[in-house]
Formats: sequence, structure tokens, C-alpha cells
Amino acid sequence: MRKKWLLSLLTFGSLFAVPVSAFAADEVTAPAVEIGLNSLFVFLAFVLVFFMQAGFALLEAGSVRMKNAGHVAGKTVLTLGIAVIAFWAFGFGFGFGNGNGFFGYEGFFFGGNGDTASFDALSGAGIPVVILFLFQFSFAAVSLAIACGGMAERAKLSVYIIFGLLFMIIIYPIIAHWVWGGGWLAEMGMQDYAGSAVVHLTGATAALVATFLLKPRLGKYNKDGKPNSIPGHNQVLSVLGVIILWFGWFGFNPGSGLSAMSDGFFGYVALTTNLAAASGGVAALLVSWAVFGKADIPSMLNGVLAALVAITGSCAFVEPWAAIVIGVVAGVLTFFTAQWFEKAGLDDPVYAFSVHGIAGMWGALSTGFFATGDLAESVGVGQAGLLYGGGFHQLGVQALGMIGTFVFVLVLSFIILGIIKAVTGLRVTEEEETMGLDISEHGTYGYPEQMGLLNHSGKDISK
Amino acid sequence: MRKKWLLSLLTFGSLFAVPVSAFAADEVTAPAVEIGLNSLFVFLAFVLVFFMQAGFALLEAGSVRMKNAGHVAGKTVLTLGIAVIAFWAFGFGFGFGNGNGFFGYEGFFFGGNGDTASFDALSGAGIPVVILFLFQFSFAAVSLAIACGGMAERAKLSVYIIFGLLFMIIIYPIIAHWVWGGGWLAEMGMQDYAGSAVVHLTGATAALVATFLLKPRLGKYNKDGKPNSIPGHNQVLSVLGVIILWFGWFGFNPGSGLSAMSDGFFGYVALTTNLAAASGGVAALLVSWAVFGKADIPSMLNGVLAALVAITGSCAFVEPWAAIVIGVVAGVLTFFTAQWFEKAGLDDPVYAFSVHGIAGMWGALSTGFFATGDLAESVGVGQAGLLYGGGFHQLGVQALGMIGTFVFVLVLSFIILGIIKAVTGLRVTEEEETMGLDISEHGTYGYPEQMGLLNHSGKDISK
Amino acid sequence: MRKKWLLSLLTFGSLFAVPVSAFAADEVTAPAVEIGLNSLFVFLAFVLVFFMQAGFALLEAGSVRMKNAGHVAGKTVLTLGIAVIAFWAFGFGFGFGNGNGFFGYEGFFFGGNGDTASFDALSGAGIPVVILFLFQFSFAAVSLAIACGGMAERAKLSVYIIFGLLFMIIIYPIIAHWVWGGGWLAEMGMQDYAGSAVVHLTGATAALVATFLLKPRLGKYNKDGKPNSIPGHNQVLSVLGVIILWFGWFGFNPGSGLSAMSDGFFGYVALTTNLAAASGGVAALLVSWAVFGKADIPSMLNGVLAALVAITGSCAFVEPWAAIVIGVVAGVLTFFTAQWFEKAGLDDPVYAFSVHGIAGMWGALSTGFFATGDLAESVGVGQAGLLYGGGFHQLGVQALGMIGTFVFVLVLSFIILGIIKAVTGLRVTEEEETMGLDISEHGTYGYPEQMGLLNHSGKDISK
Repeated sequence: MRKKWLLSLLTFGSLFAVPVSAFAADEVTAPAVEIGLNSLFVFLAFVLVFFMQAGFALLEAGSVRMKNAGHVAGKTVLTLGIAVIAFWAFGFGFGFGNGNGFFGYEGFFFGGNGDTASFDALSGAGIPVVILFLFQFSFAAVSLAIACGGMAERAKLSVYIIFGLLFMIIIYPIIAHWVWGGGWLAEMGMQDYAGSAVVHLTGATAALVATFLLKPRLGKYNKDGKPNSIPGHNQVLSVLGVIILWFGWFGFNPGSGLSAMSDGFFGYVALTTNLAAASGGVAALLVSWAVFGKADIPSMLNGVLAALVAITGSCAFVEPWAAIVIGVVAGVLTFFTAQWFEKAGLDDPVYAFSVHGIAGMWGALSTGFFATGDLAESVGVGQAGLLYGGGFHQLGVQALGMIGTFVFVLVLSFIILGIIKAVTGLRVTEEEETMGLDISEHGTYGYPEQMGLLNHSGKDISK
Repeated sequence: MRKKWLLSLLTFGSLFAVPVSAFAADEVTAPAVEIGLNSLFVFLAFVLVFFMQAGFALLEAGSVRMKNAGHVAGKTVLTLGIAVIAFWAFGFGFGFGNGNGFFGYEGFFFGGNGDTASFDALSGAGIPVVILFLFQFSFAAVSLAIACGGMAERAKLSVYIIFGLLFMIIIYPIIAHWVWGGGWLAEMGMQDYAGSAVVHLTGATAALVATFLLKPRLGKYNKDGKPNSIPGHNQVLSVLGVIILWFGWFGFNPGSGLSAMSDGFFGYVALTTNLAAASGGVAALLVSWAVFGKADIPSMLNGVLAALVAITGSCAFVEPWAAIVIGVVAGVLTFFTAQWFEKAGLDDPVYAFSVHGIAGMWGALSTGFFATGDLAESVGVGQAGLLYGGGFHQLGVQALGMIGTFVFVLVLSFIILGIIKAVTGLRVTEEEETMGLDISEHGTYGYPEQMGLLNHSGKDISK
Repeated sequence: MRKKWLLSLLTFGSLFAVPVSAFAADEVTAPAVEIGLNSLFVFLAFVLVFFMQAGFALLEAGSVRMKNAGHVAGKTVLTLGIAVIAFWAFGFGFGFGNGNGFFGYEGFFFGGNGDTASFDALSGAGIPVVILFLFQFSFAAVSLAIACGGMAERAKLSVYIIFGLLFMIIIYPIIAHWVWGGGWLAEMGMQDYAGSAVVHLTGATAALVATFLLKPRLGKYNKDGKPNSIPGHNQVLSVLGVIILWFGWFGFNPGSGLSAMSDGFFGYVALTTNLAAASGGVAALLVSWAVFGKADIPSMLNGVLAALVAITGSCAFVEPWAAIVIGVVAGVLTFFTAQWFEKAGLDDPVYAFSVHGIAGMWGALSTGFFATGDLAESVGVGQAGLLYGGGFHQLGVQALGMIGTFVFVLVLSFIILGIIKAVTGLRVTEEEETMGLDISEHGTYGYPEQMGLLNHSGKDISK
């Protein structure tokens, strides 16, 4: 009796069977093991992408002032929680459920593999739908984390909750459906391997709208309109955040191939991803050195991220040298646009739109230039870019997808955030902003002992 | 000659063979590859669970004062080291070695797969025992980390060493044997998929005893018995710790199925785990908002963890909606019990017993309510719960297991810690506690420059 | 049309084929799945080793003063970026490309599996070369991170860039070629499973030269030559760094077998690795307690790392008891040598040479004592050590490899760093060192609010 129990305990999963099962548990065949292998691969990618939430929490917390650090880190956990529930209940159905070219309308309140019939777009992948659910959820949560970056240091906590719900239910799923759920951009052959546009541009465009509607932080601009620097309080946390994001990107991009077979093509994707990240970081550092006279660390970190954002869409379509070019351009472009936006009066505390939006646009366009015919054919999406004899066709498709994503998210975010602003307001009071959101929104400092010192030191801590 | 060397270098592992091998290295069959796949899956789960030590170190360090932070983080590495050696030498044998219904007594000083014959309970899993050793070790180390949470900010370093050894050799292995090593609770069909009771309640009960015997920290209670808040010094570290723990839980729960095959059932387990975590965190935040008037971040973090603890036992047995209910109940229950214990005079600095004990009890009971007949049958342990037509049988088994675990660990911990208290004392002196355990136990501050400021600022740093 | 697109989207990788492919994508055989499995295993190991960069960034940042913390963390990202590009362009070819016994000279600007013909030494492993590229890159980047540890708190940023390039192009690849690329030490049967010598001693020897040429930090030594303690500013970050490194080592050592098959031999390697780490940490803590009268946390952390460094070369060749001995010896040796070097006037701020050099030497020698005949035969490298009846042969080979590595890296590093010193200088000015490298090299503090307090507090922050 005991033995029997133990054996069944130790073969837990292997006795589980659901209707869509392509194989019985006791006939072990190579194709069955391949499904298990690819499932494990995508699961690994899911956990890596999930861990990117830690990266965003740290990067963003490190980039704000001490009085807001607990709030900024804590709200990342809150929006993650909201993302989980909203995506499970509605987002996955709207994004990947059977539907029309614009959105899905099946598979809400996802119950596991038993709901496979609601997901024709996914069920052809030869991987259990429940695994693909996890992977897609983690992407959606990244997009939300980016969107919330634009609200830092002045938005009310309630805005994160309400906007987070609507972003996960409506905004992200619709864009995901267009490109990855069988929508109209999918039909046009848009190349966006892991989501330069779908994930990053979508999140960044929402962040842009939030930045615009929230207005700049107190003290960011002088009366003459000149911006003041408001440095983040902890570069070590920001560095850790960026290394975690870089690490997580090895799930983000390679995982998007959904297969660990095929002669290690997922490793090739990791190679181009890595080359771009490195190139973007080094390029941004050197540019900052030339422009500022000092090698600026936050600029380098943004360069790494911008390059990762840009290579996200193109990683499977381009050669190593092109990955370097894409990374360098992303790093440099983000450096200059970040300053341009700042001078233009847009106070984006963590540079969400420059890093994820501008670089996301560049990434979406980049395959239109650099996609090779061989890789496009192997991946099975779109065709060669301008520099590989494909003419302007693919570039046009990419531009259309990029503009469509940007305009749709811009309009929808304006409507949603505009209504929230009208009804409840988006921003804490001046007094609350001055004391910091740790106190105003949560009642305690994130760093109580250190803030006690700051408060007692007679320094003006409002900046 | 060189070529030959290189080939052998590059096929290192594939030439290794031990007596229990089910396949020769050069005949590659689908069942052999399946063993490799499941081994890799369990290894991934092991590394994820191992990484939870970083989560505990950060959560706990962030939850204490600056003068104790280096000590708290550092002792996590120390207890991890002790856990490794003690579990290898004795714990694994007592827990999983062949024995009777109460404990095992074979397989000490585990030598690898050559010792497979001492582990009948494990060898049926179709995975090399050395892989299962790693996985089980990482669970035991989590239980110890929980136990040590109750000692924060006042226990002597030597107590961690002595109690850590005895916990890893005696306490945890015996409970693990009861449920997972073929003991009496296994025979009764107790459902505890990844250890709400075995891992969390066990650790938390030891923490409760430590909390009780150590008495409250200086300054925690006024003369009238009212508790003072002693906020942790760094919420960003606590947030990072919780995200790392959440991430690690994707090894903890899905890995407990020991298989990456079976139509992605491990992904289903990740789905219920994730839903519970999110629900618990959001629920606890909202409750704190209603009760305190402010959305409290530490309460939310505890809600996430409590929900993860509760779903740990039930993740494979319940439907998604039930996972949400389990998470919400865990989050709310932990919120209120944490305050109740605090008011009752129990000073548990990191809320170890509320988060891992109360939620562990709820998790152990939850399958008695929510287990579905289909899932219980698939997993092969126990039967349907009360709400799925199974009557009170499974609920009774779960209650018995929960009470048995609690009482046994309570008594044994009292004996062990009571003897240590009588012989060496558990607690540092008042003077040492006031100066902080960084100095008293280790001779240096964890934050020397910042503590210098605090000391020079004239603030009373004893709180 | 849409369906077709989707299917191709979801089978991305599986349509990819390169000339070296051993199997067509649509014939799924057990050997083909085994290749996929081993590729995934090595990929997992790669991401774990990649993540060690976060560990080095945190350990090193935590071990320096606040005024240098942003710089130290940030330059880790910079040197990582340099490592990626330099290793891809030249290092991989010099290290693993076809060549002679001293270095390789094919396969520069690595283009993916299409370049397989340039890597005879790797192509026999049965794993796509692009996956092996990633794995080898991550090892090289670890070696560079170690080398840069010796420069902390006083080297110019430009030195990291120039030396980083040359280390990745010349120094590391040549040593790697000797042992893992088919060079002369490979032919002699040197046992260095995951690189006690190749990775750790190489990096540490370069760090030693940097330490020597840079001279001690201001204030490190009194006029009478007695060293002052300059404690790191944040032990919590150091602890997190060490747990991340320990975690990453489960990719470093087990991954070096390149196979997830073979009855879980990679798990055996994880077992010996873990035992050594724990033993080294506990031993170093106890020794520090005995010597200092206090249980020193940095000593324990160094003990963990030293033990991991030592077991890196021997993990696959020794029994569990020997792993414990190797770990204990490494922990104790590093403790005493660290103090000896400090007293001798060598200011190595993060103890890079003690932890990675001395322990790396001991690790390289250790298989000469403890390698068992069975394991050496299974792995297929070298023979039994002195204590297992192998006589002095293997010990001699190990000593030769260790000395060869040390002398070669010593000389080459002296030449390279000596030239840099002569041309541009290695060190910032005294004024810059006093204000801190965050300001001098990057123009902003890593902790602007906290440094403001320190500067305003009237404390002398030059120490």
C-alpha cells in the first residue's frame, strides 16, 4: 500500500491526462518527449520573463528619490498581481482566443488545457496551451510594467490599479491579437519576433500618454522652462535591475521560437540579442562621454535596454553584424531623444518612452532593412528587407504595424487615462508629492531610518 | 590523440555510468531521453528553489533595522551552509531512506546514485536519486530559513548553528518522511503536493517556539503592553525578496510533479500558483487599505507569500477559481492573525508564523474543501474534497496531518530550544541588542558608513 | 492564410535548418530530441553563468565605499558589454577555433552554426556550436569580472575598457585553448572540469598584477606600513551577490558536462559543488571566530566563494567527502592568505587573488590528490590522484598546468598593464580618489541623497 502511494506520488504529473493530449502517458515516443522538451523550454522562458518584474522594480526604484522608493518598488508587485488576474480572466481570451482580425472573444477565465478548443491560433504549436498561457502572460506583464514607468513619483496608487486592469484587459490584448493572435497585422506578414512593437511600443505609448497627462514633477522645470536633473537615489539597484532584465531577455527572445530543437536556433537568437545589448550599452556610454564629458552610467543602462528592445523584434531575422548596428543605433537614438523629450517639457522619470518607445519603433522598422531572405523564410514570417534585396515591401509592412500600434494605443490610453483624470484625478497633491509617495500612499517610508536622517538634517528633501 | 581527448572532454557526462542506470549511454531511446528531460526539469526546479534563499535573506534583512541587517543577511548564508552538510550527512537518510512509518534509517552520507538501494521510496520515480536529493535538499533549506525568521534581531549566532543542525537532522526529515518518505501520513492519503504543511508549517512552528522563548525585542511593547511598530529599514529589498520568492515558487510547486511530460501539467500547477499569489497580495493590500486607511506594502508582500504558502499543498488538486479563493483567504487571514499575534504579545519580527504557519494550516486544509475528484485521481493521492462531493473524509485526513505536524514540531522545538536556552541562553544581552547584532555578533556594521551617520546624528538608534 | 501564418509563427525555430544539422526538422527521433535536450541544458547553464555578472556587481559594490559604489556596479555592465563584443569578434576564434597547441586562428566574427567547420574541437560534442559559443562566452566574462576586481576604487574607467578588450581577445582565449580548445595542456590530460585554473586563476592573476601596479588605495596603510580596515559599505548587497554566485555555479559546474542524460551525472556534480561551498563558508566563519573573536561575515562569504572556486576544477572527479575537504581547505587558505597579502602591502579590495587565485591553485592541484580512478575514467580525462593509487603523475600534470597558467597570465598582464600605465596611467588622481570615482569618472554619485548627507555631516569621507 505504501509503495503504491509512493509511486503514484512520484509520478504525479505522468498520470494526468486531458482531452487534447496527443499521447498516452505510458507510451513514450520521441515526438512525445519533444513536446515535453519544448514545454520545458517555454516554461524556462516564462520564468525568466517573469523575473524581469524584479528588474523593472529595481531599475525604477533606483531611478527615483528615496522618499518614493518603497512605493515604486511596491506598486510593481501590485500591478503584477493585477496583471495575473486580469490576463487570466479576460486578457488571454481577448488576445489569443478565437475571434476576428481585431480581437478574440473566446477562452475567458482560462481553465487549462481543457479550453484548448478556444485557442486555434495557439493549438497548432504542438505545445500544451497552458504552457503558452504562462509565456504570454509574462509578456503582457512586462508591457504593463513599462506603461507604469511613465507615472513614477506623482500618480496616485489607485490609478495604477484602474489603469492596470484596463491595460491588461483591453489595450495589450488587442495589439497582441493583431500580430500574434491571428489579427490583421499577422495576415500582412509583420515581423515582430518577440515584440518590439507588441510589448515595448505598446507599453511605452501608454507611458507617454501618462507622462503627458500627469505633467512634470514638482521642481523638474525652472520658470524659464529649463529642466533640472532629479537623479535616482541608487545606481547599484538600477544596475542590478538592468542585469536582471538582460538575463530575463534570454527567455524573452529565444523563448519566442517555442522550440529547443532545430539545431539550436534559439541559441542564435540569444547571440544576436546579446550582441545588440552590448553594443547599445557601450555606444551610449561613449556618446555620453563625448557629449557630457563624463561616462554617464544611467545613459549606458538605458543604452543596453534600448538595444534589447530594438533587437526584440528582429533577433531571429538578422545577421550578427546587423544586430550590432541595430543595437548601436538604438543606444544612440535613445540617448538623444531622452534629452530632447526632457528639454521639450516631457518629464518621463525613467525614460520609458525613449527606451521602450523610440527603440521599439526602431526595432519594428529594423527588420524592414536587415531581414535576410533565408532567415525570414526559415522563421516563416514576411520576407527579406531593403538591404537584402527585398525592396520596400517589408519596410512598408513594418512601418504600418508600428504606426498602427502607436496610434491605437495612443488614442485608447488617452481615452482611459482622460476619463480617470476627469473622475478621480491622476495625481497626488503638491503636499503629498513633496512628502513623498511612500508616506502619502502607504503611510510609511520605504527607508524609515534613512529618511529620518534626511528629514532631521535640515536638507530640502522635496527634490 | 588530441581529438580523442576533446571528444571525451565534450562528452564528459555521457560516459558516466552507475549501477542503477536504466540505459547504456550509447543507446539513445525515447524513454532514456524522457529520463534526461525529467532530470533537467527537476534540476531547474532545484535551482529555482535554491535561489529562494536569496529571497529570504532580502525579505528578512529588509524587514529589520539597519543595525541588524548585515547579521540577518549573513546568517542566511550560514544556515544554508549548515543545511547543506547536515541534510547530506543525516537528514536525507532520516527523511527519505528506507525505514519505518516514522523515520528512515538508511542512506546517510549520501554518495550519489550508488546509494539508490537505500531509497526505495524515491527510486520508483524514474529519475536519478542524486537529482531528487538536490530537490529535497532545497526544500529542507527553505523550511530552515522560515524557522530562523522567528529569531530575528535578538538570538545569538550560536543558536542558529546548533538549532539549524538539529532542525535539519531531526525535525524536518521526520515530518518529510511522514508525508513524502512513505510514512504514516502518506499511507493515509494526505494531500500536500509541495509542502504547505511539510515545509512551511514545520518551519513556521519552529519559528513560533523561538519567538515565544526568545521573548519580544526591546522596545517592542510599552509598559501597558501595547505594541510599537518597528518598521523594517528597506522596503525595496523586501520587495525584491518577495519577487525572488514568487519566482522560486515556480520551481517549488511545478517541480513537485517531477515530470515535464504529461501535457504540461506542471504548467497547470504554475497557473494555480500564480493566481493564488496575485489574489493574496491584492486582497491583503485592499484589506490593509480598509483597516489602516493606507495601502500597506509589507501587508501586501505578506499576502503574496501567505497565498503562495497556502496554494503549495493544493496547487495540483484545485481549479483556478478555487486557487483564487485559497489565495484571498490566505492573504486576509494572515493580515488579521499577524496583528492579533502582535497584540497578544508575540513579537514575530518577520511574521513567520502568520505567513508560513497560519497560511500553511489553511493550505493543508484547503484540499479537504476544494480538491476535485479528477485531479486527485490524476495525481494519485487522496480523493475529492467536501465541495466536490467527497464528504468529510479528505478534510479529516488533512486536519489530522496538519495537527500532527504542528504538535510534533511544537514539542520537539520546545525541547531543543529549551535545552539550548538552559545551557547557553538564546538571546544576546540588552546592551548587545541595543548596539545591534551586526556589531555584537560579527564585530562590524553591515552598513558602516550609514550607521556612522546614524550614530553621529544624536538619534536614538536603539529602536 | 491566417492559419498558415500562425502555424509558421508557432513553429518558428523548427523550420530553421543549417548545413551542419544532423537531422531534418520533421523527423523526430530520440537522438534528435537528445540533442535538443542537451542544448537546452547547456543554454540553462549559460543563463545561470551569465547571471553571475549580477553577483560580481553586487559583491564588489557592497565591498567598496559609498562614493565608489555606482562606479563599481556600472563598470561591471561596461566590461560585460566589452566582453560580449570582443569574445564574439576574436576571443572565440583564438580560444576554440582550429589552430595549433597554443592558440586557435579560425572562426572570428562568429556567425552561428554555419561556422561549425572552424571549430573541430567543439563540433564533436553533439551540440550546436552556437549553444557552445554562448556557454563559453559566459565563462570568459566571469574571468574578466574577476580580473577587474583587483582594480576597484582607484583605476581609471578607460583602463577597464582597454584591458577588458585585450583580456578577452588574448589572455583568456589562449589559456582556454590550452585546456579546452585542444592545446598542449589538453594533450597532457589536465583535469580542470569547469575551470579552477582556466577561468578563476586566469582572472585572479590579472587582478594580482593590477593590484600590484595600481598600488594601495589612499589611507589603506599607515606610515609604519600597518594596514587599516576599509570596510565595504553594504553587507546585504555582498550577501546577495554571493548567493547569486552560488546559484550561478549550478550552471558553471554541472553545465560543463554538456549533457543532461547519463543518469543525472550533472546532479552529482551539483552535489559535490554544493558540499564544498557550504564547507568552505562554515569553515571560514569558524576560523574567523577563533582568530578575531567575532564571526566575520565577509570572511564567510569569501570562504563560500573560495570553496566554489576550488571545487570548480575537481567537482566531477572526487567523492563527496573529498569535496568537503577541498572546500574546507579552500576556505581556510583564503582566510589566511587574504590577511597575509594585506599585511604584505598588497591592497586587493575585494580579495580577488586570495579567493580566485589561491583557491584556484588549490582547486587545480586538488584532483591530483583526490581524483578517483572510476570518475577520471568516466569523465575521460586524466587518471586517479595520489590518494587513490594514481601516484604523482596527475598531481604533476596539475601542477604544471597551474604554474603554466599563472606564469603566462602574470607575464602577459604585466606587459599589457605596464604599457597602459606608461602611456595613459592606470590610476585616477589623489583628488579624484578622495572625492570618489562616482563623481570623478561619471559625474554623479551612485547614491546622491545619501552622499549629500555624508558630505554635509562633516565626516571625513575620504576613507
